[in-house]
Amino acid sequence: MKLNIGVIKGDGIGPEIVTEAMKVLDRTGEVYGHEMHYTQLLMGGASIDVHGVPLTDETVQLARSSDAVLMGSIGGDAKTSPWYQLEPSRRPEAGLLRIRKELNLFANLRPAVLYEELKGACPLKEEITQGGFDMMIMRELTGGLYFGARATEEKDGVLTAWDTLTYNEQEIRRIAKRGFDIAMKRRKKVTSVDKANVLDSSRLWRKVVEEVAADYPEVILEHMLVDNCAMQLVKDPKQFDVILTENMFGDILSDEASMVTGSIGMLASASLNESRFGLYEPSGGSAPDIAGKGIANPIATILSAAMMLRFSFDLDREADAIEQAVAQVLKEGYRTIDIMSEGKTQIGTAKMGDLICGYI
Amino acid sequence: MKLNIGVIKGDGIGPEIVTEAMKVLDRTGEVYGHEMHYTQLLMGGASIDVHGVPLTDETVQLARSSDAVLMGSIGGDAKTSPWYQLEPSRRPEAGLLRIRKELNLFANLRPAVLYEELKGACPLKEEITQGGFDMMIMRELTGGLYFGARATEEKDGVLTAWDTLTYNEQEIRRIAKRGFDIAMKRRKKVTSVDKANVLDSSRLWRKVVEEVAADYPEVILEHMLVDNCAMQLVKDPKQFDVILTENMFGDILSDEASMVTGSIGMLASASLNESRFGLYEPSGGSAPDIAGKGIANPIATILSAAMMLRFSFDLDREADAIEQAVAQVLKEGYRTIDIMSEGKTQIGTAKMGDLICGYI
Ligand SMILES: CC(C)[C@H](C(=O)O)[C@@H](O)C(=O)O
Ligand SMILES: CC(C)[C@H](C(=O)O)[C@@H](O)C(=O)O
Repeated sequence: MKLNIGVIKGDGIGPEIVTEAMKVLDRTGEVYGHEMHYTQLLMGGASIDVHGVPLTDETVQLARSSDAVLMGSIGGDAKTSPWYQLEPSRRPEAGLLRIRKELNLFANLRPAVLYEELKGACPLKEEITQGGFDMMIMRELTGGLYFGARATEEKDGVLTAWDTLTYNEQEIRRIAKRGFDIAMKRRKKVTSVDKANVLDSSRLWRKVVEEVAADYPEVILEHMLVDNCAMQLVKDPKQFDVILTENMFGDILSDEASMVTGSIGMLASASLNESRFGLYEPSGGSAPDIAGKGIANPIATILSAAMMLRFSFDLDREADAIEQAVAQVLKEGYRTIDIMSEGKTQIGTAKMGDLICGYI
Repeated sequence: MKLNIGVIKGDGIGPEIVTEAMKVLDRTGEVYGHEMHYTQLLMGGASIDVHGVPLTDETVQLARSSDAVLMGSIGGDAKTSPWYQLEPSRRPEAGLLRIRKELNLFANLRPAVLYEELKGACPLKEEITQGGFDMMIMRELTGGLYFGARATEEKDGVLTAWDTLTYNEQEIRRIAKRGFDIAMKRRKKVTSVDKANVLDSSRLWRKVVEEVAADYPEVILEHMLVDNCAMQLVKDPKQFDVILTENMFGDILSDEASMVTGSIGMLASASLNESRFGLYEPSGGSAPDIAGKGIANPIATILSAAMMLRFSFDLDREADAIEQAVAQVLKEGYRTIDIMSEGKTQIGTAKMGDLICGYI
């Protein structure tokens, strides 16, 4: 099979971690007989440096004509980087927001998994995490406060700023379906998170989610208020299978959930559209403070590449092979610094990539 | 001094825990020579049962003419209680939202403290909490998504629902000032939380907070994105002194922070207006499942009463006395079931109130 993959190396540690993921993809291609065809795309700070904007129309076109896009992380240090002297709409993250919208990547999947091997890094007590946990956050990614109308206005010398949180039935229905579909392949439980005791958009969310649930009699649906969910993630993360929620709540809760695992450098993510296209990226940020040092953890990006093979190319066997190779290397005690603990062997970014390739 | 206190016993465990707080107030009055004058007010489910609505105009008037209001918790079990068959605007929580707005209670203070004595209940590992933590969340309470325009509309057979997140400079300035004032009495650090990389309202928030900060040269101001804050509360809660944020972010983050302490039954809260008036209530919910059993933890409400003496009546010595009495009882090993651990003595709601009175 020939895979047309757009590659956005991104900023900070992006180029280093994407390089390792490409290494692993190449190795997987060799072993299983696939041809990897990469198109390098610029986005975020790297695009600002070359084109003055975080995303060009040409890049959008090139991304669109790829089967899938693999991405590092976008953005720099807001305090020191000149990118943050620009208008918000010209900053690195604006590229990310625009590509999500242009490519209609409405379904953001973020697994939050506690790896038994890495329990040491988990901030929660042993008694809470016993037996491990494994949840999938399904976040709506092209609606809500992120893309509603907004403005800053002056009246009688007083500035007022506003943003709109808006959803229609169709937007809610398509993400809810995705959530239930994923739940069917997992432990068949959906926790839909909203703030229905306050927001109209949440009340519509709840109504539509219930309609969709009727088509999935095997799946248990539960509603949870967002403030309660923020508590439950800390108190008892094991209770969750699929968390289904809107854009801003998903932003907050998925970051909280990934920190609760203690291994953010291990967590992949996928942003999917209605067909098979997806943008795959690590959950963590661009970590400009450690960029270029060869110490960043490439595993999240490597696992994102595995997700890409699974979701955009239906190559389950190949995805499994990558995931097992990662598990094997961890089992043997190799760790990058972010997940290092006593008695383990600390290695750098490239070495981690090499070792994982060795098991494919 | 004569204290005119409105009392909303509330729903679920509300009446039990408020009774204990009144007991402690009475004892404090006896010892320090103050006259407590209570006016019982109905709000939430209890008001629906009597008046059909969660808050009457008369109650608003009575609350307004009190010096301060002490409250239990509002609401019931959304799955089983008939209150939740009503329109959202007639449900128990609507009373709470309305009283906040009517009385202009824009400044919500929620301390999140790790009690050394109760470390066992904290979900975080010892190494993260070593030395304890003590933060104050300052949440804006009368603006943002909670009170912006909203609607659910049908167009071509498709429902769309929207809510507006809106803030003006004045609203931001007054809450920011409160945040910095509190920081001056604490460790002089303010973490202002927003989503300035996406929202116009957050960009205005950041601008005004910086203007206010200029008047407090001794206070260190840092900005943090809300998704990052949700992570940092789990990763390193010790870094925070005052967290200053808008209404919805504050709702989510303050609940997360209180769960991170592991002792939500210990956490007080205050909602203040421009003058000395305030509404004081425990951070936790109405826990209908354990209502009437005499096992609820009254300490959060007792500490809320102490906050009331401090903020609305300037009775610092009396507030200190209550706080010290609580500390003493904990030190002696008395615990309600929610904070119980091995080797301690389990007691009920009333006994906890009695013991605390004994030390005043
Ligand atoms: C960079 C930012 C705009 C983005 C978001 O808020 O969606 C990021 O936090 C994420 O979660 O991918
Ligand atoms: C009951 C609800 C409307 C309320 C809120 O969201 O403000 C509660 O969660 C709180 O934090 O006091």
